[in-house]
Amino acid sequence: MKQIESHRISGGNQGVWRHQSNLLGCEMNVAVFVPEHEEGARLPVIYWLSGLTCSEQNFITKAGAQRYAAEHGVILVAPDTSPRGEDVADDPAYDLGLGAGFYLNATQAPWAKHFRMYDYVLEELPALIEAHFPASYRRSIMGHSMGGHGALIMALKNPGRFAAVSAFSPIVAPSQVPWGRKAFSTYLGEDEAEWRDWDATALLSKAQERLPILIDQGEADDFLEPQLKPWVFAEEADRLGHPLTLRRHQGYDHSYYFIASFIGEHVAWHAKALMA
Amino acid sequence: MKQIESHRISGGNQGVWRHQSNLLGCEMNVAVFVPEHEEGARLPVIYWLSGLTCSEQNFITKAGAQRYAAEHGVILVAPDTSPRGEDVADDPAYDLGLGAGFYLNATQAPWAKHFRMYDYVLEELPALIEAHFPASYRRSIMGHSMGGHGALIMALKNPGRFAAVSAFSPIVAPSQVPWGRKAFSTYLGEDEAEWRDWDATALLSKAQERLPILIDQGEADDFLEPQLKPWVFAEEADRLGHPLTLRRHQGYDHSYYFIASFIGEHVAWHAKALMA
Repeated sequence: MKQIESHRISGGNQGVWRHQSNLLGCEMNVAVFVPEHEEGARLPVIYWLSGLTCSEQNFITKAGAQRYAAEHGVILVAPDTSPRGEDVADDPAYDLGLGAGFYLNATQAPWAKHFRMYDYVLEELPALIEAHFPASYRRSIMGHSMGGHGALIMALKNPGRFAAVSAFSPIVAPSQVPWGRKAFSTYLGEDEAEWRDWDATALLSKAQERLPILIDQGEADDFLEPQLKPWVFAEEADRLGHPLTLRRHQGYDHSYYFIASFIGEHVAWHAKALMA
Repeated sequence: MKQIESHRISGGNQGVWRHQSNLLGCEMNVAVFVPEHEEGARLPVIYWLSGLTCSEQNFITKAGAQRYAAEHGVILVAPDTSPRGEDVADDPAYDLGLGAGFYLNATQAPWAKHFRMYDYVLEELPALIEAHFPASYRRSIMGHSMGGHGALIMALKNPGRFAAVSAFSPIVAPSQVPWGRKAFSTYLGEDEAEWRDWDATALLSKAQERLPILIDQGEADDFLEPQLKPWVFAEEADRLGHPLTLRRHQGYDHSYYFIASFIGEHVAWHAKALMA
């Protein structure tokens, strides 16, 4: 891993690293915040998955999470949102291709060659983080919008893997909304039965672990009704008795101003589970 | 004033407003954060002046100041760094023209027509803020780099006007460094005697008020030696007995990661003076 940025913040280090991903077949950037810590200590890791159009930069420059990670002694890892590079398939739309990997493993040409963000976030990235940073094996995951959905499916599909999961303004039922239907039909094909393995609401009934979920959603979010519909997920969680805390906040929109307002509570929620 | 952005954050509102500036002869954007407050309350205002290349956006998206302003009940105002528009004089360099107003009143053609950021920040902008927002007449001022220098000269030239002044990584002696010499010779002309009225270190000996100054500076700042030289200002303050707290922080650079690390302490410093 090659460090391409290094900044001191809140007593720790915000780095950006570049590495060759064998899995994705391209170079990837990943942002890693390591708080001040005692020599030899191994710290738990919170993974952050960003939304459509984002890179590894958005979260580290806008969320203000580092001060809370420093306070709780946790590492923050923010990967990019898709494979990158000239030979990676793309689409002119903002919600497909580069910046729109949807944290799944594509099965359809030409996407299947590079678009394997699910395996990357679940396997290749943690192995790198645990090899190159003072990271323990305690992991949790959170994200925003498309990345909120990514966090939900990572946790739901992998019982025992994550100590906590939370999301800001997540897509929760991609099979039922335009962003998700477009991405799934493109990356996974037209057979909707295949989609159920990648849809958080569909996965909830198969979850083998009752890991509590925290979701924050702004009521003034333009995407709330057409794309997000958190009530679909909440109704399913309620039906199944899956522990979900869904907080709806008046006046907040889909931006990082919303994330910055509540990121401290999310980091505290994760830290409590990671230190338990 | 026309609102062009509105976001809820930390219980308050982060707006961006556009208005015709009669003084600058162009339209200007200004960012205003108003915390939650009681009906009819008038809140003190901290003005933030950004550095070279910035607009009104950098501070509000990257510094994480809103949570502290909400906690202390103060308004934050962040103007743009120069006049803007197609008929405004510019230069291809990043440190002259658009984004590089230096918070002075230019006397040289073609700059004198629009580049009057000093009068704008000191007079026109506060009048607008106090007319359109729940703002009291209690004001303080802070800034970064070029904007740190702007804050220093605003306070030094106007005794009694500001309750507090502070700066991150400021230019302190523009007459003695390349950024300042280039800007001053361009905007003010070659007669260096004219520069003394716009140079914080030169102004310190004329200050009629012993307003305490807080400066934070990163030791890993690439601009520290060639452009900033805070020791020049510190030596003059020491000679004059002017109260200055200069804190030098190991490992921190010139970026918003540094500002984000200490902005909470600056807002608290200002709030204490504003509420006194």
